[in-house]
Amino acid sequence: MRLPRIAVDAMGGDEGVRVMVEGAALARRRHDRFKFLLVGDEVRIKAALETHPGMTEASEVLHCEDVVGGDEKPSRALRRAKTTSMGLAVNAVKQGDAGAAVSAGNTGALMAMSKLALRTMPGIDRPALAALLPTLTDDDVIMLDLGANRECDARNLLQFAVMGAAYSRIVTGRESPRVRLLNIGTEETKGTEDIQEAAARLKAATGLAMTFDGFVEADKINRGNCDVIVTDGFSGNIALKAIEGAARFVTDLLKNAFSSSFRSKVGFLVSRPATELLKHHLDPNNHNGAVFLGLNGVVVKSHGSANAKGVANAVEVAARLLEDDITNRIAQDIGALSASGLTAP
Amino acid sequence: MRLPRIAVDAMGGDEGVRVMVEGAALARRRHDRFKFLLVGDEVRIKAALETHPGMTEASEVLHCEDVVGGDEKPSRALRRAKTTSMGLAVNAVKQGDAGAAVSAGNTGALMAMSKLALRTMPGIDRPALAALLPTLTDDDVIMLDLGANRECDARNLLQFAVMGAAYSRIVTGRESPRVRLLNIGTEETKGTEDIQEAAARLKAATGLAMTFDGFVEADKINRGNCDVIVTDGFSGNIALKAIEGAARFVTDLLKNAFSSSFRSKVGFLVSRPATELLKHHLDPNNHNGAVFLGLNGVVVKSHGSANAKGVANAVEVAARLLEDDITNRIAQDIGALSASGLTAP
Repeated sequence: MRLPRIAVDAMGGDEGVRVMVEGAALARRRHDRFKFLLVGDEVRIKAALETHPGMTEASEVLHCEDVVGGDEKPSRALRRAKTTSMGLAVNAVKQGDAGAAVSAGNTGALMAMSKLALRTMPGIDRPALAALLPTLTDDDVIMLDLGANRECDARNLLQFAVMGAAYSRIVTGRESPRVRLLNIGTEETKGTEDIQEAAARLKAATGLAMTFDGFVEADKINRGNCDVIVTDGFSGNIALKAIEGAARFVTDLLKNAFSSSFRSKVGFLVSRPATELLKHHLDPNNHNGAVFLGLNGVVVKSHGSANAKGVANAVEVAARLLEDDITNRIAQDIGALSASGLTAP
Repeated sequence: MRLPRIAVDAMGGDEGVRVMVEGAALARRRHDRFKFLLVGDEVRIKAALETHPGMTEASEVLHCEDVVGGDEKPSRALRRAKTTSMGLAVNAVKQGDAGAAVSAGNTGALMAMSKLALRTMPGIDRPALAALLPTLTDDDVIMLDLGANRECDARNLLQFAVMGAAYSRIVTGRESPRVRLLNIGTEETKGTEDIQEAAARLKAATGLAMTFDGFVEADKINRGNCDVIVTDGFSGNIALKAIEGAARFVTDLLKNAFSSSFRSKVGFLVSRPATELLKHHLDPNNHNGAVFLGLNGVVVKSHGSANAKGVANAVEVAARLLEDDITNRIAQDIGALSASGLTAP
């Protein structure tokens, strides 16, 4: 199968053109079939392309000068969908001019533009933002929603479970990924009515390509004993950021501790392979690329501060979801869910 | 001022009598004015007391054999308030027989019993569970609610801010603690309507003994640039547990990394002072003791798996809140809040 090209918003993110083009080039060094539609300032993009062998041939440039601001309100950005690099990258997917879009710009604006241009899939009420998180095992865990929806009802959570499971089958290869709902306890009586209702429906469901394992508390997210963690966008965002912050907190403490005495410093130097391993495992660039699931098309959000390695990771996520046809997989599973009668409001 | 004695539920928690009595004794070694009312099996408590010099003289034992189960439903535990060690410890505070109660038992049951026996303070709609979390600075940060209320409106959040600030003034000595609301972004438009409404009211408030600094995202909780973080019980519980889990995840990764090669092992041994420092800073026992704020009396929840050092910490939290008269402080601040007209629903 020929891989459709990937539209890259070359202007978004903290560093814009340089890091986005370098990231695309890095992804292409590992997968030389990748082709790109780079959206943004033509002069700067072409200059950047020339520094990476083969990239000029593999890329088309769609010129535009407007960029969505990092703090720009989604409603304002929406009105500039036809003139901004983000809007044009998403539109390329809508037009079939690219298979997927990658942007490191404003998350809210990207969500709003993607929803408007690509529309939500039949059977899905709301798209969700999903990402891979590291665990103690070799497998990552998928968590969703991470902030696309502040409040979610049982029906939304059910659909998120189906979308997360479809994504997990692609990344883990498991036929029946283990799905859990994030909650503040594991007993059936814990949590909001919507969570309890979603759990009851998932438990009753048959014929879904997942194994529902009940609730998971936030301290077990990184343990690696489930494949998909489903939650509303508010709690998911809180959990994700709390984990990021705590990981940074511990590594900062460690840094302080290691520089607290001569002996500690020596120990640090001797054990550097260990701390490098840790750094590698916790580097957010290795897990970069959050996906909007539930749209008629693939859109990947790269972190605003991701480096070239991070951008390459986001590009590879987009390519993988395209190759494995995530949209069709979700459509099939939602069909099975509807057939089971469990999506009634 | 003579410190009123502290009622200890000697039967709650994973290990019960041994660790609870040892914890009380440890606290008393540092503060020899502490006196206790120990509630539980008399024979076992008296035997435990004898192993700690001075403790028999400093303690009265209230015999009872019933214990609230770790998974027992709060509604069921409530019916056994008069016969269980937890119920009797809380009741001692109600009767004025003790100044505060400490229990390592079932959190939901402790909350339900405390609310029923001590009643919510005038001007407070719902009590909240608050705890101290470590930061990169020397000061801890107070976060509330951590799970007493699944859903909270703007008015609840406002009251939590007042209660948290009163607690913070006691532990930090700051006259105007820096208060923030936990949210999924720092812009004014972020989060639920209740959060936005609470922020608007806190911003408009005058005469409160706090400085409201707006929103904080979950990745900044441990940064140490605010004193009180206010949130609903669902998000607070998710954030707290996500932090605990991530800290354990990183230290587990570190342990694996340090044992990955001979060189790493040597480095670990040499730098042990550094890793011990880290362990000390992250040891949950050093931050043990969550407080139910907003009741007519002081009740402290010790973690079920806390060791004697952890229990001693919880006992000291109870003593400190008693000495500094947290209940009256909150009453005064709630008076100021009502006077400002900001508590209207």
